[in-house]
Amino acid sequence: MKGLGRHLILELWGGKNFNSAATVEAALRDAAAACAATIKDVQVYHYSPEGVTGVAVLAESHITIHTWPEYDYAAVDVFTCGDGADPTVAIPVLRAHFEARRVQVMEVVRGIASCTE
Amino acid sequence: MKGLGRHLILELWGGKNFNSAATVEAALRDAAAACAATIKDVQVYHYSPEGVTGVAVLAESHITIHTWPEYDYAAVDVFTCGDGADPTVAIPVLRAHFEARRVQVMEVVRGIASCTE
Repeated sequence: MKGLGRHLILELWGGKNFNSAATVEAALRDAAAACAATIKDVQVYHYSPEGVTGVAVLAESHITIHTWPEYDYAAVDVFTCGDGADPTVAIPVLRAHFEARRVQVMEVVRGIASCTE
Repeated sequence: MKGLGRHLILELWGGKNFNSAATVEAALRDAAAACAATIKDVQVYHYSPEGVTGVAVLAESHITIHTWPEYDYAAVDVFTCGDGADPTVAIPVLRAHFEARRVQVMEVVRGIASCTE
């Protein structure tokens, strides 16, 4: 079904580097590059005692990563818009950075206009 | 079902101010305040000829807004973590800023540990 944006919801489990701000930033930048997306801004925060939040604002929407090292888990979103963008190419890139054992993927098609109005 | 984060996916249709960077920023800040969330950073970009992207990085995860004024549409995500956070309180705040006629809401519970491992 065609909409205005493609939004991947990724659940990464059982990996490495979930407490590394450098890995989160590299994962954001490489995932954006894989999507041929234009990065407008990247913010990465490391929390005490553990956990990292990273957000890449894209000209084509956004990529976010929130990690819970204590649960061996990261919540990742890859949202792209535009005909050229394919967010699924980011999945192996993200998985590799974190060496995630298991990745659950859901795609939400955003901005599907109702046919009833 | 209990997870590590609550992620609301909101589709706003038929509103006003979708081309206003000031409205997007105010909506981000007021939505975060409604959730009693701590803002780490806010970025807002206006695109030519129209459309706005706004991202608020929160200590409790993130809020993002991407607008398509030409379709009378905005894609909004409100992702919160922590026991105290209730992202649903942001819904009327966001709706009011854009005077949206219709709001579709989906909640994705993030970080539900598998019982099978």
